[in-house]
Amino acid sequence: MERRKVVIALGHRALGNTLPEQKAATKSTAKIIARLVKEGAEIVICHSNAPQVGMIHTAMNEFGKYHPDYTFAPMSVCSAMSQGYIGYDLQNAIRSELMKEGVYKPVCTVLTQVTVDPYDDAFAEPVKVIGRTMTEQEAEEEEKKGNSVIRTENGYRRIVAAPRPQDVVEIDSIRTLFEAGHVVIACGGGGIPVLEQKTELKGASAVIEKDYASGKLARLLDADELMILTSVEKVAVGYHTDHEELLGEISVDKAREYMARGEFEPNTMLPKVEASVEFVEEKEGRRAVITSIDKAVEGYLGKTGTVIVK
Amino acid sequence: MERRKVVIALGHRALGNTLPEQKAATKSTAKIIARLVKEGAEIVICHSNAPQVGMIHTAMNEFGKYHPDYTFAPMSVCSAMSQGYIGYDLQNAIRSELMKEGVYKPVCTVLTQVTVDPYDDAFAEPVKVIGRTMTEQEAEEEEKKGNSVIRTENGYRRIVAAPRPQDVVEIDSIRTLFEAGHVVIACGGGGIPVLEQKTELKGASAVIEKDYASGKLARLLDADELMILTSVEKVAVGYHTDHEELLGEISVDKAREYMARGEFEPNTMLPKVEASVEFVEEKEGRRAVITSIDKAVEGYLGKTGTVIVK
Repeated sequence: MERRKVVIALGHRALGNTLPEQKAATKSTAKIIARLVKEGAEIVICHSNAPQVGMIHTAMNEFGKYHPDYTFAPMSVCSAMSQGYIGYDLQNAIRSELMKEGVYKPVCTVLTQVTVDPYDDAFAEPVKVIGRTMTEQEAEEEEKKGNSVIRTENGYRRIVAAPRPQDVVEIDSIRTLFEAGHVVIACGGGGIPVLEQKTELKGASAVIEKDYASGKLARLLDADELMILTSVEKVAVGYHTDHEELLGEISVDKAREYMARGEFEPNTMLPKVEASVEFVEEKEGRRAVITSIDKAVEGYLGKTGTVIVK
Repeated sequence: MERRKVVIALGHRALGNTLPEQKAATKSTAKIIARLVKEGAEIVICHSNAPQVGMIHTAMNEFGKYHPDYTFAPMSVCSAMSQGYIGYDLQNAIRSELMKEGVYKPVCTVLTQVTVDPYDDAFAEPVKVIGRTMTEQEAEEEEKKGNSVIRTENGYRRIVAAPRPQDVVEIDSIRTLFEAGHVVIACGGGGIPVLEQKTELKGASAVIEKDYASGKLARLLDADELMILTSVEKVAVGYHTDHEELLGEISVDKAREYMARGEFEPNTMLPKVEASVEFVEEKEGRRAVITSIDKAVEGYLGKTGTVIVK
């Protein structure tokens, strides 16, 4: 059996929203991860965290409001907490499924920070909605603190920037564990976004798209494969038109052509395709697969999914 | 310079209570860790988390109360969050101080679970107070859920059991990083307490004393030294009597004699001495130091602290 180094990006569907949903979702996700391990995959997992970090952010900030000794918890701190929370369920579910399969392989979660560029254009145009719905008065208070808010159907919500990942701070630790054959959960929620200021890392009021973080991680680890597991089996072009087409194996050039034509939704499919292209074109022999979580094993075996090769 | 493998237990004073306190406290703690690294120590850090997990537990449970889609977050989940939160500040502070010293050494936090025995006597007699003060009605609700509460000056508070650590689930990952020379933060808050049920690990409604967890970690990693950093430079016997004596270097036998005489406070000094004794007596050549965080370097160099040897 060929052993391949794979970075897997797990989306929302793999994790659920609430505590009981997360327990159930990570359990079925873990069964798939265990099957991939049995097929020879050496795995690092990166995952999203939107509902989880939203829950924690709301809880911590309501707490800060009513407990005068305490301050608000910034997004970076909430992101660190969400890595602990999600990693805990996910690593346990995977550990258990591997044991059931008779595989002994350590599983662990590495708290991960990802640097972003303070001059990233994304900071000028926040796009990621976070936290709970606020009243007009609360929204004004947020703006006074320098945070951005948008008006929604029911009120107001905070939005933060989604800058590109520059570097993974804990890459040496992740690499050491990966090369020792451990299943590693890293870059949870795209990583805790931080800005480098001399020797210090300062939490940034931002979120990093987990697809870009996964692509960065796959490149830094020199993985053979990037698997982005989402809700669809294949990526579509001409989406919702009469010439809609589901993509099978395509070249980097073809993918770039589709991107230039605006075929992919900016905040959903585009980051997946773009991260795949950047990973694949950097080095010969790499492969990126975008498919649904249920089809992950078939995608790994080359039987389905949208596959991007050089 | 002799290189020694050291497990360091950091107490409350090294971390502070609130967010700004934690930032400041971890910064001064990190200076000491960096000096120990320069003296040749290879370090794994274990830390307490009482105020942090208390804050998170209160915040998450208030949130659960007012957001009907959500459930309460059990202690184990809050403990996982606290490892992320504390690890984030602590690893950054250490990374920065090492860089200032011109030392390149990766620093990381490994989410850690520690198994406990469901038949541990501690479950019959909960001793650790957690979370905020509750009203009588809230206390009754907690009891209906099967949780224990105690009456305090201002109301009621939850108490949980403090069972002994049995095993460190992520020990292979911690060992791999430690042997690669990384500074590893592990077993935060004594570890997330879990019960083994076949292939599954279930969160236990408990907290694990970080001194015992550190001792267990030091034994599993076959460390040369266990350093328990607290608020006093030396352990006292005859505490607050006219024959009070500060202990320097003592043997395991002497320490056992003092323990049998009830010289140490059950929930503060006793776990430190007991964890030290268990670590030292297991193997020749080991050393345990109990001293204050400010005196850590002198303690490491054998100039102060209470030192327990075989």
